[in-house]
Amino acid sequence: MLYSIMRNRLLLNAAFLFSVFAVAEAQQQISVIPMPSVVQFGSGQLKIDRFFSIAITGFHDAALERGVQRFVAEMSLQTGIPFRSKLSDSSPTLLIRAERGRDAVQKLGEDESYALAINESGAKLVAPNPLGILHGLQTFLQLVEPGTNGFIVPAVTITDRPRFPWRGLLIDVGRHFIPLNVLKRNVDGMAAVKMNVLHLHLYDNEGFRVESKRFPRLQEVGSDGLYYTQAEIREFVAYAHDRGIRIVPEFEMPGHSRSLFVGYPELASAPGPYKVEPGGADAVMDPTREETYKFIDKLIEEMASLFPDDYFHIGGDEVNGSQWDANPKIQAFILSHGMKTNQDLQAYFNQRLQKILSKHHRIMMGWDEVIHPDLPKKVVVQSWRGQQSLATAAQQGYTSLLSFGYYLDLMWPASRHYAVDPMSGAAASLNPEEKSRIIGGEACMWSEWVTPENIDSRIWPRNAAIAERLWSSPEVQDSGSMYTRLDKSSRRLEWLGLTHRSSMVLAFYRMAGTNDIAALRTLAEVVEPVKDYTRMNSLKTVWDFRAPLNRLVDIARPESDQARRLKDDVQTYIGSGYRDKAAAGEIRTRLAAWRDNDARLHPLLEQSFLLSELAPLSEDLSTLAAAGLLALEYLDTSTPSANSWRAQQLALVERAKTPKADLLLMVVEPVQQLIERSEGQPQER
Amino acid sequence: MLYSIMRNRLLLNAAFLFSVFAVAEAQQQISVIPMPSVVQFGSGQLKIDRFFSIAITGFHDAALERGVQRFVAEMSLQTGIPFRSKLSDSSPTLLIRAERGRDAVQKLGEDESYALAINESGAKLVAPNPLGILHGLQTFLQLVEPGTNGFIVPAVTITDRPRFPWRGLLIDVGRHFIPLNVLKRNVDGMAAVKMNVLHLHLYDNEGFRVESKRFPRLQEVGSDGLYYTQAEIREFVAYAHDRGIRIVPEFEMPGHSRSLFVGYPELASAPGPYKVEPGGADAVMDPTREETYKFIDKLIEEMASLFPDDYFHIGGDEVNGSQWDANPKIQAFILSHGMKTNQDLQAYFNQRLQKILSKHHRIMMGWDEVIHPDLPKKVVVQSWRGQQSLATAAQQGYTSLLSFGYYLDLMWPASRHYAVDPMSGAAASLNPEEKSRIIGGEACMWSEWVTPENIDSRIWPRNAAIAERLWSSPEVQDSGSMYTRLDKSSRRLEWLGLTHRSSMVLAFYRMAGTNDIAALRTLAEVVEPVKDYTRMNSLKTVWDFRAPLNRLVDIARPESDQARRLKDDVQTYIGSGYRDKAAAGEIRTRLAAWRDNDARLHPLLEQSFLLSELAPLSEDLSTLAAAGLLALEYLDTSTPSANSWRAQQLALVERAKTPKADLLLMVVEPVQQLIERSEGQPQER
Repeated sequence: MLYSIMRNRLLLNAAFLFSVFAVAEAQQQISVIPMPSVVQFGSGQLKIDRFFSIAITGFHDAALERGVQRFVAEMSLQTGIPFRSKLSDSSPTLLIRAERGRDAVQKLGEDESYALAINESGAKLVAPNPLGILHGLQTFLQLVEPGTNGFIVPAVTITDRPRFPWRGLLIDVGRHFIPLNVLKRNVDGMAAVKMNVLHLHLYDNEGFRVESKRFPRLQEVGSDGLYYTQAEIREFVAYAHDRGIRIVPEFEMPGHSRSLFVGYPELASAPGPYKVEPGGADAVMDPTREETYKFIDKLIEEMASLFPDDYFHIGGDEVNGSQWDANPKIQAFILSHGMKTNQDLQAYFNQRLQKILSKHHRIMMGWDEVIHPDLPKKVVVQSWRGQQSLATAAQQGYTSLLSFGYYLDLMWPASRHYAVDPMSGAAASLNPEEKSRIIGGEACMWSEWVTPENIDSRIWPRNAAIAERLWSSPEVQDSGSMYTRLDKSSRRLEWLGLTHRSSMVLAFYRMAGTNDIAALRTLAEVVEPVKDYTRMNSLKTVWDFRAPLNRLVDIARPESDQARRLKDDVQTYIGSGYRDKAAAGEIRTRLAAWRDNDARLHPLLEQSFLLSELAPLSEDLSTLAAAGLLALEYLDTSTPSANSWRAQQLALVERAKTPKADLLLMVVEPVQQLIERSEGQPQER
Repeated sequence: MLYSIMRNRLLLNAAFLFSVFAVAEAQQQISVIPMPSVVQFGSGQLKIDRFFSIAITGFHDAALERGVQRFVAEMSLQTGIPFRSKLSDSSPTLLIRAERGRDAVQKLGEDESYALAINESGAKLVAPNPLGILHGLQTFLQLVEPGTNGFIVPAVTITDRPRFPWRGLLIDVGRHFIPLNVLKRNVDGMAAVKMNVLHLHLYDNEGFRVESKRFPRLQEVGSDGLYYTQAEIREFVAYAHDRGIRIVPEFEMPGHSRSLFVGYPELASAPGPYKVEPGGADAVMDPTREETYKFIDKLIEEMASLFPDDYFHIGGDEVNGSQWDANPKIQAFILSHGMKTNQDLQAYFNQRLQKILSKHHRIMMGWDEVIHPDLPKKVVVQSWRGQQSLATAAQQGYTSLLSFGYYLDLMWPASRHYAVDPMSGAAASLNPEEKSRIIGGEACMWSEWVTPENIDSRIWPRNAAIAERLWSSPEVQDSGSMYTRLDKSSRRLEWLGLTHRSSMVLAFYRMAGTNDIAALRTLAEVVEPVKDYTRMNSLKTVWDFRAPLNRLVDIARPESDQARRLKDDVQTYIGSGYRDKAAAGEIRTRLAAWRDNDARLHPLLEQSFLLSELAPLSEDLSTLAAAGLLALEYLDTSTPSANSWRAQQLALVERAKTPKADLLLMVVEPVQQLIERSEGQPQER
């Protein structure tokens, strides 16, 4: 089944190559993310006023109607016009037509295409099935804007379909529990950017998050009381299905599963007892006991009844073999079964798992460590350790998807995620058949440093860049255009209840204990959390999932817009031979505000324990901004700076590069450029 | 029953008089709103960290435990510390003890007192019943703040009880439907400021908002499909009860009830047909037909089963007699029953209503128009037309409460509401027994110009000032202290999900269609919607409840903090004989930003139809600010300004006083003061 989908997709992609030129043009003009496949502009615009009406022709069911009503509700939010949610038949503004219905359980590779035609007198949205209608409605919403005479949508014809059928987001609800209302608003966000898989990492060492009726001690003692009931899961799966999003559950085995052993220590490879507490990543299941497989069989049977998706993730990553090494019975098992390594034992375990999943009509997925000569080819491999493992998996015949490069917890800028393409790197040299096995990718939101409060700010808006990479043509690569559209989409996501922008303000109030947070905000807007695993690696004690996450590092955005803008302005200024007065003015205004900020912030820093660690950072910002202002003065007046002055300033720059309070000052690099340039090389005129 | 409660309250108030001095002192030091009755400061502080624990001794039930868990959840939000919600028994940080349980249906005048004692080693909260515990927990939450070494609560002993037993907020869900989630967050806000009655105005001419199973056409054709189901009402009543808040329903009769006639035209005094559409305030019930009373009897019986509160509001205001005048049968009825006026007919109607309500065990309430010699004294009168009607009602023996002066839709500043005391004005000259009939007051949120999006910004934070007026001692009157505490409370209310601050930003994005909203925000922060009924009165066509409310007047806050601060600074500056440099600096910074704002805002104004009407306002702000800066210059340098210059500027001031786009520019008055003062009268030195 999967193969035929893939072949179809390849053909379709070829058919869409003609649109490359149109895409490049559209990027400049249309504020839609992900960029649609083909965009043709018409003339004029369609007015959106309170008489806006909709008719559904063709296929019609309650789910489609709910989708249309969500569309109408969101149009009301976006415009402030209280549209009536009743559907009209006669001469509607927007005519919707789906050819046929959807499957009860959404399938990988279901047709998601749509065509949207808008002119001055009305709009028409057609699609083979309601999935395409949902996507088309999201495109429509992104086109609505205030004009000089009312809200309008430009006249445009769009035909659109995804490049990859698997466009996912993983949320780790194990390490920190994420309540359903937060998941729901993120599902709304995913639908807004046309993602279609929510992969739930349902437990980890720190807590088991789904109610099991067969093994109730899983959630009762294996969590801190925070888990989803079965009724909640069912309702949530339906919620996501309504929005065209599959829920793929991950039940991690044999590692990362200590929370299972709290209630069921007999599953583990070492006697226990086990507790929900920090540390203890060694704990791993015992794959040598038949009871382990009986437990897994029953658990999967129960969980498969909750999660109807065809795919079922079993984790399989980062198995720490120390418990296996230390257990003589397990070592004897390895020997007696002719295995050589712990990896062989895990492969044996995975084969057993695959049979159990197959019995329950599920396709098994695992992280790239599961690749092993004995692993059946029908297992789907998710690559997290590098693009090489994706290529290897595809080469070896596995259907595979990419997560390396899409880890949102690493605090990369959107542009860096955006530059990672599933077909680039090692995959670029695969043959067409091998390539056809790569079905997409997944952004990953691991939750070591994530709470219900800050999770939106870690996922959004950067996730929209990944969504575009997975939906749009590979030729869509202009990161300037991406950022422009990301900014607009970021506003729109707030209408859905996402708090990626607003939560920051509340956290500032908490930290400062006062209304006067302007100086704190100024500092916060030019810092970013340290990248990759630096924060974890610099911990002096074992990571504690119960610790408060209320420092600035937990609140500051992964990507500083202010710093990005400064970098752009400095590039423009340098590129103009220091003659662009507007750029110089922008740089000067920013630097002046930052120079003066420490004096304003200082009184606050002394009052609150949550702010005191920021003092050196705030000082660095002011010092650096002052140096940058002087350098700008030298450049503006074509006066070379003294070598001694530059040496002194560059020493400050180096000091400012050291992370402080787990934060990086993101304006260091452009200021350094200004200082270095102030040496006064003659400029070409 | 009511009388004995009132007597008790009087005695208690007398007993609390000794606390007046303590109150005055506490206003300066404690950030709690409403100000508690007695506050005594201890030394030191209690640390709040993740080991914070709670024990409940004495009375204990599920509702109390839910209240404690909400407290813990809110502490987590406020501090970012993930408190575990389990209760601890041994050596808790906070010990809670209620003597006894609550009534299943909350009664008017139930004891709401509590005592809270906090020292370095722990806290103790005791109360006669869980209502007091809920209030005490709210006080505790307001005391938490970040210290130099962690979150802390100051050592303090508080004994507290309300001045009035009826501290209400009316929300009109008839003219614009307000969804339950919005009502719920407002209930949370009410609980945070210790209000205890939510009065729901459940329909008006524009829509009937409760499901009736007996008369389903009420909601089916009498609304636009937006109403609460009976299950939702039951759940909401329980939600409010959990938070110590009574729900008092209002079923408005005989006027303001056209939405009833859409489905049941036979109730009306004129034949109809009736539709849900603008206009038609004439429609009024026919009080001469027995069928009318049969309908009301059945409806009230059904609604009383949904709303368990002892009190039931029948409206009774603004009866437009034109349909009665025009109906010969009704005129004949008036004559044949020996009545003289339409008022007599309404009094007859009210007596019949009162009997029906009595049969269903409800105490009837009505707006002050219901006062009539024939009205039974057990009816409760709500005064909206003036403080005189409150005094009249109390004098005539009616239990009464005040809403005049507390109309949130009139867009008054908090200080103006704050200055209105139920016992002031005409009530001041009542005798003690008459005074004892005044049981409190209600803020009113009429919804002509209100939507789910902006309603929070109309209610909060001003409602907290009214809450304090009704809870705290009448000696608590310092509006400076009130504003300081209001600001802090306003931040805290955002943690509850209220959007009174955040919704503005989203609306700016909608209006501007761009991220660059700084200049729009600057303008928005110095304007206020026109006051009283000016907006309604200046309409050129009939008011249309279906029209979009997406202009700046719908978004701008009722009270401009920026303008209030400018006024304060100008007062300080003038009071210092123009020598206070800090105040002058503040004034100058603000005026300079405003002077430059029009140039920044102008490009936006031209792009969006929602902004274009703001052009003259934006111009006024810049012109005015420039004039203010010059005046400041004259004053700073002790140079008298020329008479001709002043005359010219004061002409601009007059022009700027005219409302534009239904908005008032709130910085006009302080700038006018600066200009006038620049005449250069010699200053006392």
